[in-house]
Amino acid sequence: MVGWQIVTLVAGALSLGVAAYFYTWVMRQPNDSKEMAEFSLAIQEGAAAYLKRLYQALGLLSVGVAIILLLAVNWQTAIAFLVGAAFSAGAGYAGMYVATRANSRVAWAARQGLQEAFPIGFFAGGVMGMSVVGVALIGMTLIYMIFRGTPIEGGPPSVVLGFSFGASAMALLAKAGGGIYTKTADIGADLVGKVEFGLAEDDPRNPAVVADNVGDNVGDVAGMGSDIFDSYVASVVAVMILGYELYQGSAIGELYVMFPLILSALGVFASVLGMLFVRTGGRNDPGRALNTGTVATTLILALMVAIVTFLLPFDQPWGLILPTVFGLGAGVLMGFTSDKYTDIDQAAVQTTAKASVSGPALVIIEGFSYGLVSIVPSMIGIAAAMVASFFLAQAFGVPGTYGVSLAAVGMLAITGMIVSADAYGPIVDNARGCAEVGHEDAETIAVCDRLDAAGNTAKAITKGFAIGAAALTVLALFSAYAETVDLTVLSLTNPRVVAGLFLGAMMPPYFSALLMLSVGSNAELMVAEIRRQFEEIPGVLAGTVKPNSTLCIDIATRGALKELVLPAALALLAPLLVGIILGVEALGGFLGGSIVSGIIFALFMSNAGGLWDNAKKFIEDGALGGKGSDAHKAAVVGDTVGDPFKDTAGPSLNTLITVMSLSATVFAPILVKIAFF
Amino acid sequence: MVGWQIVTLVAGALSLGVAAYFYTWVMRQPNDSKEMAEFSLAIQEGAAAYLKRLYQALGLLSVGVAIILLLAVNWQTAIAFLVGAAFSAGAGYAGMYVATRANSRVAWAARQGLQEAFPIGFFAGGVMGMSVVGVALIGMTLIYMIFRGTPIEGGPPSVVLGFSFGASAMALLAKAGGGIYTKTADIGADLVGKVEFGLAEDDPRNPAVVADNVGDNVGDVAGMGSDIFDSYVASVVAVMILGYELYQGSAIGELYVMFPLILSALGVFASVLGMLFVRTGGRNDPGRALNTGTVATTLILALMVAIVTFLLPFDQPWGLILPTVFGLGAGVLMGFTSDKYTDIDQAAVQTTAKASVSGPALVIIEGFSYGLVSIVPSMIGIAAAMVASFFLAQAFGVPGTYGVSLAAVGMLAITGMIVSADAYGPIVDNARGCAEVGHEDAETIAVCDRLDAAGNTAKAITKGFAIGAAALTVLALFSAYAETVDLTVLSLTNPRVVAGLFLGAMMPPYFSALLMLSVGSNAELMVAEIRRQFEEIPGVLAGTVKPNSTLCIDIATRGALKELVLPAALALLAPLLVGIILGVEALGGFLGGSIVSGIIFALFMSNAGGLWDNAKKFIEDGALGGKGSDAHKAAVVGDTVGDPFKDTAGPSLNTLITVMSLSATVFAPILVKIAFF
Repeated sequence: MVGWQIVTLVAGALSLGVAAYFYTWVMRQPNDSKEMAEFSLAIQEGAAAYLKRLYQALGLLSVGVAIILLLAVNWQTAIAFLVGAAFSAGAGYAGMYVATRANSRVAWAARQGLQEAFPIGFFAGGVMGMSVVGVALIGMTLIYMIFRGTPIEGGPPSVVLGFSFGASAMALLAKAGGGIYTKTADIGADLVGKVEFGLAEDDPRNPAVVADNVGDNVGDVAGMGSDIFDSYVASVVAVMILGYELYQGSAIGELYVMFPLILSALGVFASVLGMLFVRTGGRNDPGRALNTGTVATTLILALMVAIVTFLLPFDQPWGLILPTVFGLGAGVLMGFTSDKYTDIDQAAVQTTAKASVSGPALVIIEGFSYGLVSIVPSMIGIAAAMVASFFLAQAFGVPGTYGVSLAAVGMLAITGMIVSADAYGPIVDNARGCAEVGHEDAETIAVCDRLDAAGNTAKAITKGFAIGAAALTVLALFSAYAETVDLTVLSLTNPRVVAGLFLGAMMPPYFSALLMLSVGSNAELMVAEIRRQFEEIPGVLAGTVKPNSTLCIDIATRGALKELVLPAALALLAPLLVGIILGVEALGGFLGGSIVSGIIFALFMSNAGGLWDNAKKFIEDGALGGKGSDAHKAAVVGDTVGDPFKDTAGPSLNTLITVMSLSATVFAPILVKIAFF
Repeated sequence: MVGWQIVTLVAGALSLGVAAYFYTWVMRQPNDSKEMAEFSLAIQEGAAAYLKRLYQALGLLSVGVAIILLLAVNWQTAIAFLVGAAFSAGAGYAGMYVATRANSRVAWAARQGLQEAFPIGFFAGGVMGMSVVGVALIGMTLIYMIFRGTPIEGGPPSVVLGFSFGASAMALLAKAGGGIYTKTADIGADLVGKVEFGLAEDDPRNPAVVADNVGDNVGDVAGMGSDIFDSYVASVVAVMILGYELYQGSAIGELYVMFPLILSALGVFASVLGMLFVRTGGRNDPGRALNTGTVATTLILALMVAIVTFLLPFDQPWGLILPTVFGLGAGVLMGFTSDKYTDIDQAAVQTTAKASVSGPALVIIEGFSYGLVSIVPSMIGIAAAMVASFFLAQAFGVPGTYGVSLAAVGMLAITGMIVSADAYGPIVDNARGCAEVGHEDAETIAVCDRLDAAGNTAKAITKGFAIGAAALTVLALFSAYAETVDLTVLSLTNPRVVAGLFLGAMMPPYFSALLMLSVGSNAELMVAEIRRQFEEIPGVLAGTVKPNSTLCIDIATRGALKELVLPAALALLAPLLVGIILGVEALGGFLGGSIVSGIIFALFMSNAGGLWDNAKKFIEDGALGGKGSDAHKAAVVGDTVGDPFKDTAGPSLNTLITVMSLSATVFAPILVKIAFF
């Protein structure tokens, strides 16, 4: 076994090495525009200021939770929790550090052309992708190795669970806080700058423009990185726990515990190889380049999994290979098909755009409805992936629950590649802002626009992928929870389970609402501040006086952190309350309910938001009267409503359900002993 | 036992007798305005034309389903299905017949004052309330009596289940079709008449005004009547089935089967007595009068239940009394507290109204978020009611599932009173339209407005009550399903159950989306037709030529029925497909998922819609710039979005989950035998 632990450590180190290589390469690229450098610096400072405060908040929270873990579970879990939170924060910080420095470099290179600019964006994104994977792999392996010999309830995987819980707590803060931050700034900047004063996107006279660009980084880079870090670790831990519980005492029992780490190590090798396929080549099509990389990684990994699993001393290799490869394929498929309702060329987007002729109300009704319809294929896909991986495993002699959790690991094994392609998006988006601020010519901005469009495609794919992967991961965690509390039966004919189901299902919509209300009230503060600057300092609008960006950054930062308290407390405490008051069966129902409704709302909100965004773009591209028409104004309303849907509430729900599942599983041993009712 | 069957028949007959008395009294009231009579006649004709086509569609559907039942279940169930559909249609027709004739009479009496007009509205509503209860009680009792001796799988209650299924199929068509109809007309009339041409609500020059008023009747009177008929019958049937399965062979076994019918009979007596308390008296406060009637009915019924249950030869009367009375109390409480997020004096409505200053997007975001928050108290309330009634029953020696189903019957026993108060609403709403058309003076219209405001209060209460009652009813049906297929365990650790949960949870949002998309596309047709009439026939806008209302009625009618096909097929067939392909365990999960997400979406959509409506009214009452301000325009967008939320999709979901539960239970015996996978 120790041999395999070294392999996973090596894979982690390789991943970090690649990230370091990308980093130095990106930092060597020139940027000789003073205006751009200044703008980029403002973003770096804003982002760093926000992260500093976020990490302070995280520190407080972590210490609090660690003390509870120390008292209620054991010191090993408490330490693992702190390490998990710190590692996740570190990976996010590294990714954001380079992202905020790459933006102006991409913009500068765009003067020479797309082929020069693209690799800077992709390699900068790669820092995030490979850091996440490397840090996670090394963290999990080390914790496992250190506590391997310690006799502890639940075995060493239960300590790795603490690591996962820490990463997840960090992800919750990063994702929800970043989501509030980015949309406070975005909506504020748009409502006053674009709608009231007719300024362009990223106009440097708008005091909220820097905050808006900071928001892209803290929400879409750091937040998303933590989010996938969280799912990645949780999926591996779920398999480790199930492997430990199911194969305890078997001769190769430990191999079943190590297997998900081995798969993840293979994922690193496959991602590195797959990245070699990301080349724009003669075609100058960056979207295609990213997709080619994803597909190549998938195929390489599938082959590796099959070969390595056969070489390992398993009795039933097919029962392991098939669910893993199936999960991998299902994830990619879900990613590639998730844009049926959000793609600008599809009927849903265009019908919604056409409704804008009858005013904003019909835009909302149509987009809302198509958002709900959009959940259907994914829900069927998730249910099918779960059932298929369960029975595929079982048919070849592996317990079905272990198979389902392998499918989740299979999906997430290509995280390195997926996150790299995704983090590319906000970087080139920021680059466009830099080009605007640097007064680059139309050709350079056009190059930035094409880079940006590819980023949106990659983002759509990641979104479908992330929700699918999170769904299978929490289902795996759910099995891990049931194993931990020794509940082989959680029956819907038991009123406690049904009560839990109701309460759990209520959490995701409630959590979403809290986040969106925060965005609403913060955006109103932001609107007031921007208006004040335009009114009180006449030079700002004329462009002769620099606006006070710091005040806007401050509103977004303080608002985001203040408003995080209630939802974060809710996510961490609600499962414990249900467990303490109604018992572990109710808590099982609670997790089940939260998973189902969490996935529904995550899909619905992300897709509806994307759809409204593209309906607006469809009109801006010249349809139905184009920019400035009444139809366009109506479509802008839809887009603004969609902003917190797709960038605040929707993507935070993954994290919410993961955190709640982890919280329940970590505290399960003590919850089994107490229940008031 | 036969003695008790006679009591329930007598109660049913009494209920119909009271309805007949109310009918003749209302029809004796005068209306001497030619204009009003003409307008009322147009509504009567439009409503009758719609119902005729609806019943034709229902006839086709019923024959189809009856043939399937004949082949797959037995002829008794097939016949009961047809009788249930016909009886439900009959009750709805009677209610609507008098409602469309009472409107002008209320308006005429309003010239003399509120005290004269109020009883006409309330008695006319009472025709609906008492018809629903009377027809349901007589239907269930007769079917039970006729098939009492027949040896049949599942016993005589399984035949009554067929009756319930028929009523439910009718309710699905009536509620969803009526919902599409009413909002097609309403949104169309508003968008062109109010927004584009600045006409008042109910301006007779608007060609869609008659259709709009017809919509109130077919949606809010006939549709709502069928909806509660459906829940009422289903709650009784669930107890009958559980009583039969649990107490088969016991000496007083049949008493447990008859008990819900006895409770319902007591409910009739209590409602009739409670109606005596509905008096405006010196206070001239119609809202208070309606609430007094509801509270009086509740108290009288609680007392009756306790006395009668003690007199019956039960071993454990407390185990029956407590859950019943608890359910009754919980239902009323849920009704009275459901308006915390929709009441015009509450923070949620006013915060949303204030957001309108920053434009329509923030109105939507705030209202959407508060709508999601609003589900929290009701979800906790439903979970608490279920757990409490389960354990209250169990503590006194009655099986918990029987207790939960008694709570549902307890809630619904006061249906006669509740529906009467609710049907009053659209009648006085129509009366206001009549007064407008009849050019009555400001004082008369003010009286109508006050009557209307009371109707809105009653409606808010019914809504909370209806969803709470439907939730407990479907939970009871769920137990009945589990008993029927002999599944004591439906474990969330079983992948089939989880797959079913995902698929079931997807249904309510999908169904909602289909209905709302129908409203959107039909409303666009309506908008085009109204614009055409204003443009092509100049006299219409001048008021010299009568608009062609028939064409608008036709668009609403045809659109509603055409768009019903897919959602209705989905509701009836999806449970069967899941059962056939994935088996009865998956179907159990499917029902559980649909119940949870159905209740979430029903609460969310109904409350968000009500909230937006009142945020607009708050501004119209003079706040934030009042009518015509930019804030008002933004609030109107919210209100229009809320229309299909609260009047089409939201209230149809009760029926959807009931129909699916009944479909599953009716076909359960055959599904047990087949499953492909």
